[in-house]
Parts: sequence; C-alpha cells; structure tokens
Amino acid sequence: LLSKLPDVGTSIFSVMSQLAQEHSAINLAQGFPDYDPPQELLEDLARHATTPGHQQYAPMPGLPRLREAISHKTALLYGVPAPDPATEITITSGATEALYAVLAAVVHPGDDVLVLEPAYDLYGPAIRLQGGRPVYVPLRPTDFRPDWDQVAAALTPRTRLIMLNTPHNPSGAVLTAEDWNTLAALLENTDTLVLSDEVYEHMVFDGQPHRSALQHPQLAERSFVLSSFGKTYHATGWKVGYCVAPPALTAEVRRVHQFLTFAVHTPTQHALADVLSHADHFRELPGFYQHKRDLFAELLTDTGFELLPVAGAYFQLARYRQLSSLPDVEFARRLTAETRVAVVPVSAFYHDGHDDGLIRFCFAKRDETLQAAAERLSRL
Amino acid sequence: LLSKLPDVGTSIFSVMSQLAQEHSAINLAQGFPDYDPPQELLEDLARHATTPGHQQYAPMPGLPRLREAISHKTALLYGVPAPDPATEITITSGATEALYAVLAAVVHPGDDVLVLEPAYDLYGPAIRLQGGRPVYVPLRPTDFRPDWDQVAAALTPRTRLIMLNTPHNPSGAVLTAEDWNTLAALLENTDTLVLSDEVYEHMVFDGQPHRSALQHPQLAERSFVLSSFGKTYHATGWKVGYCVAPPALTAEVRRVHQFLTFAVHTPTQHALADVLSHADHFRELPGFYQHKRDLFAELLTDTGFELLPVAGAYFQLARYRQLSSLPDVEFARRLTAETRVAVVPVSAFYHDGHDDGLIRFCFAKRDETLQAAAERLSRL
Ligand SMILES: CSCCC(=O)C(=O)O
Ligand SMILES: CSCCC(=O)C(=O)O
Repeated sequence: LLSKLPDVGTSIFSVMSQLAQEHSAINLAQGFPDYDPPQELLEDLARHATTPGHQQYAPMPGLPRLREAISHKTALLYGVPAPDPATEITITSGATEALYAVLAAVVHPGDDVLVLEPAYDLYGPAIRLQGGRPVYVPLRPTDFRPDWDQVAAALTPRTRLIMLNTPHNPSGAVLTAEDWNTLAALLENTDTLVLSDEVYEHMVFDGQPHRSALQHPQLAERSFVLSSFGKTYHATGWKVGYCVAPPALTAEVRRVHQFLTFAVHTPTQHALADVLSHADHFRELPGFYQHKRDLFAELLTDTGFELLPVAGAYFQLARYRQLSSLPDVEFARRLTAETRVAVVPVSAFYHDGHDDGLIRFCFAKRDETLQAAAERLSRL
Repeated sequence: LLSKLPDVGTSIFSVMSQLAQEHSAINLAQGFPDYDPPQELLEDLARHATTPGHQQYAPMPGLPRLREAISHKTALLYGVPAPDPATEITITSGATEALYAVLAAVVHPGDDVLVLEPAYDLYGPAIRLQGGRPVYVPLRPTDFRPDWDQVAAALTPRTRLIMLNTPHNPSGAVLTAEDWNTLAALLENTDTLVLSDEVYEHMVFDGQPHRSALQHPQLAERSFVLSSFGKTYHATGWKVGYCVAPPALTAEVRRVHQFLTFAVHTPTQHALADVLSHADHFRELPGFYQHKRDLFAELLTDTGFELLPVAGAYFQLARYRQLSSLPDVEFARRLTAETRVAVVPVSAFYHDGHDDGLIRFCFAKRDETLQAAAERLSRL
C-alpha cells in the first residue's frame, strides 16, 4: 500500500499522551485542561442529551441559534459588523475539521501555501493531501513573531493561502494590529487568501487585546477565521469549532464540510448556544490563564529551565540547554519516562525537525497539578 | 475564487430538508428517524456529559472501551475473528468522516475509483477532491444489484478502490455471499482495495442476513468496512461512526483522521460503549423496520405510486410515472411544496442526473407520521 504521507507518523500529541499514560506521568504535553467545563454547560448538555427531538442531524452549516450567538459575540467583542449566520458562519467538528475543510476547499494541486514555523503539526500534511506545496517561512527565533520581509519574499502569484495563528501555538506570540496592517498591504492586489487560526482568542495576557483578522476590513474579505469551543469552554473532547468567512469563501468551505462530516453533534450545539447566548464566561479566561502562566513560571524558577515570554494561549516554551544537550525529542521522552512530566518537543512543530533545544509545557492544569509537576521538575 | 467543485451544489439532503421546513412538509426526504434513541442511551449520555474528566480529547483512534465493544460485537454477529481494537478499528465523526478519510488516505491523483450508481451523493465529489477519477458503473435497473460483468469490464490496473454499499442507499438492495465471492474472484491478483459502506447493517428484512465484506477472508484483507451508530441507535445527530480494516489499512486511515477531526465527542463514545457492551438493541431493528416498510407500502396502495421491493435500509423507492411526467427533481419539489411530503429525487444519486422517474421516501418515521404522509399522498 503506497502511503500518501509516508513520512508522517502519529501526531506528537497522541504519542506523548500515550507515553504519559504508560509512565503515569503528569501530562503537560497535549494541550487540554485537567478541569471540566463550567457546571452550567455540563448541565445544558445533559439536558439537551435527553431532550426529545434533539438527537438527529443538525443543519449542515450548524444550528441556526448557535451561529446567531457566535455572530452576536463576534460583533460585540471585536467591534466588527456581525457576520451573517446564514452565509458567513459554519460549525465544524472542532477547529481541526475547519482547517482541513478550508484547505480542501481552496488549495488546488500545485498551489503554494505559506506556513510560518513553528506550526501546528497538521498544517503541512493537510496541505500536502490537497496536492499543495507548503512553503515554510521561519518566525523570528527571538520572539516567534513574523518577519514580514521574509513573508514578502516568499509570496508569489502561486501563493494560494497564507496560514496564520494568533495567539500562536506553541510560542504564545500574538499578532498586533500593525502585523495585520502589514499583511494587508502585502496581499493587496494579490489573490492570496488568509487562514487565521484563532482558537486561543480568549487567552491573551497582560491587558493586551486579541487582534482578529476580522478586524481588518481588507483582510476579513479574504480570510477564513477559525475558533474552537473546546479551548474556550475547557471541553476539548466536545469537538466543536467554527469558521467565519465572507459568503463566497463560506460557500466553498461548506461544499467540502458537507462531505467531510456533514454536521456536528446536535445536543452539544444546543448546549453551546445556551451558554454563549447568556453568559460571558470567556471574559474571565485571560485572568484565569495569566494566573496559571505566572504561577507555573514562578514554580519553575531555579529549575534550570529558561522560560520564554508568553503573551497568549496556554503553553510555556522552555529552553533546557543548561540541563541537557540531548535532542529535544529524546529529552522530552526522558522527561516523560524518568521525571514523569510529559512535554512536547518543539521540533515536532517544524517540517524538518529543526531543534532549538526547546520543549513545550501546557499550563492549562489545576494549580495543584502545576505544583506537582514543578516539584518533579525541580529534582532534575 | 476558483471552486474545486464548481458543479456541486448543496447536498440534496440539506436542500430537501430546508424545503420541507419552508413548507411545513412531512420530511420523508433526509434519512433520519423522528423518534429518539433508547432512553437508556440518552441517560448514559447525560451521565457522561456530567462526569468529571470525560470532557477532554478522546484518544485519536477512539475510546479503547468503545473499540473493544465493537470488536466483540463484530465477532459475535458475523462469526469472524474479533478485529483488533488497537490496530483495526477507528472511531470517526460519523461514517461520513470515515468515508472521506479512506478516500483521502488511499486515492492518489489519477487513480480510478469504481462507484456503482445510484450512489450516495458524497462518493463522487469526495473522490474528485483527492484528484481521483470516479468511474461509474450502473447497478442493474431492475433490482439495483451489481452487474458483475460490467464491474469486471470497468476494472483496470488503475482502479485503486471499489466502493460498495450494502444495504444499499437509496434502493435497499443487499449483497449476498455470492456477490462477495464474485468480487473476491475479480480482485484476486489485483491491488484494488474495497470500501464497504455498511451503515444499514442492522436493517435487513425477510429473515435474510446482512453479509459483511468482513465475512469473506480474501476481501477483508483489502477492505475498509464502515458503520454508523447514528443509524443503529436512532441518533443521526451524534455523528459517531467507525471503520474496520486490517492494520496496514487502518494505519493509513488514522494518518488522515488525525488531521481531519483528530478525535470524536468523548462523552458520546462513553455512552455508546456502555450500551453496546451490555445490550443488543440492534437485534430488534430488522423487525422494527420491516414493520415500517410493510406499513408504508400498505398505506401507499392505490396512490398511483409503484413501489419497488426493499430488502434492507430504511428507504422506499417509488416510480411516479402514472402520476406525473415531470422530471424527478421537479416532481419532488412539487410534492414537498404542494402535497407537503418531502422526498428525494433519485437523480441526485447519479453523477449525470440520470432520471428514471423515481423518488425516495424515508420510512424511519413513527407510524403516525407514515400515516399522515400517506394520507397527503393519497390526495394526489
Ligand atoms: C488535537 S491534540 C493537540 C492539542 C493541541 O492543540 C496541542 O497540544 O497543541
Ligand atoms: C447526511 S444527511 C443524509 C442522510 C442519509 O443518509 C440519506 O438521506 O441518504
């Protein structure tokens, strides 16, 4: 059997979670919280799960009331015209499906897609499965922000799409209004589209705002903006995300979405619509995660890890060169097996395994979990 | 924006459901029941939805306990060696995702894929999105069973995959052990793989057994066999399906699945594992649906519809030529708008809109619903 992805193994997140389990390690590898969604939301789901008539196919683009709630929230939060629920919002099986659907919808064989590395591990393979060519541009090694000159140099008439991610996984770097302006200027008079992966939109720290591609009118016209309820509501296992895009782009996404998964878990969409339409839980997230970021950093003082600044998302990058000269994959495995704290080697975010001696911790964990992990790490 | 599927519109199932809603029609178009899953299963879902620790990512290939329950059921039901949950079973976001993942995993640009028409509307577009070429072979117009001579004639060294569906949507025709033998003989000494869509496996009537591709050892070696909990448990909105395939094939499906959706709704997987591991609800389904088939046929006597025989699944095909000479799309629209019974025109199952004057009714409806629909239809 001739593989279409012969060089692609199991996602690093699965591999490390599996290894964590084998060694009863504290899992700071795969990004998910060890606490539950708000009680109210769990009860909403339980209620809809037992509501007659809520167990069959949702409409293909998503439940209207959930799309309306998203539209309302988006307008309110980002000060933009409310996206039209009927033609500009599509509910997907997690942001993962949205990502894949966008790529399958717009990347033609032979197209180039710009990816800023380090990048989430699905970007490259998902582009290649469409017959596209990922063109990798490194983020600045100092602060993981785009070097727009390098982006400009990589853009050609063959560039079908550029993929951005803010707040950025794994570094936490966030794009500014200035960044979006620069990108908009670069893309003027081109046909290049934008995929903006904003799944950590509600986790930006130090009083900074999240800047969405939707806030730049010239970019919004050519952008697919993705988000994820899993991240926002501590419910990564629910697999509900969405894509906001102008009508012509949304039409293409839905053409694919209808054949990829067709629709998303109906009772869960009802529960999310309930909570989204009357609560603003997400407003607490910056404070909630900033506390965890700061606590974890404090706990790791004097461990020999050099921590990089974290502006958003729920990951902490750490340089471990003072502790070991092993390659990062090897170091991460040992840390999991021996220190029993599972982490992700950052080379997994590079198509060529580029290794800067960095690992990624997920700090979306109870304070006690972070304390227990730090204790183990301090024995290194 | 250059569409990759310029000739593909919104799935007929969405279109007709939408139209049904606009006209307050009884929806016998899109295939879903108007009754709920077993109460026990709803309560299982509600319980897991409020169980701490059950709201985060499931393992990428699916919850181990659900895969084990599937393995056990498969062995018991089909008298085959239990598929290995670790390497041969993958849980997907409905059988739809499984279908797409198989195609994305094995169809290389330029490959041929054999599709027996009429066929589910996603087959063709999903093949084309991989750069594959759908090669359409008509089922026999008399009984919608494969004409194996025509299949043999269409097979070439470029045939990467043949897609089969038993019980068949929309006709209800079922494959026999003899059919599988014939196919196995045709594929001997070829590299052609098999996708067997068996989502209606528990709905075969008149005392006949469902024959799975898994029961033929030489075919099982090269087959992806798909099923769907949505169909079996009256829960089409839950979007959980699965794929059974030998380890080498499963490895390829998972390579794609991890980037398509990554994992499936965790509490729902728990609920399905509960019910599957201690109940055999599905044993009641043949009787349950055979009653509905017979009731609906009886109700339609003297309406002028000529009903075709139905061996399985939950659809009734009907010839309407005595009633109208309209094209089937037009007839279905009128029936929805004027008679207020929504149906699917069978030409939607043909890549070229081939029209035999047939419509499809879904009889997965409460007896009262079928009665009400028949009453409206009798006024034609
Ligand atoms: C789909 S598992 C990966 C979760 C995640 O976003 C991460 O760990 O980066
Ligand atoms: C995914 S909506 C279509 C449901 C179905 O299987 C059918 O109506 O044929």
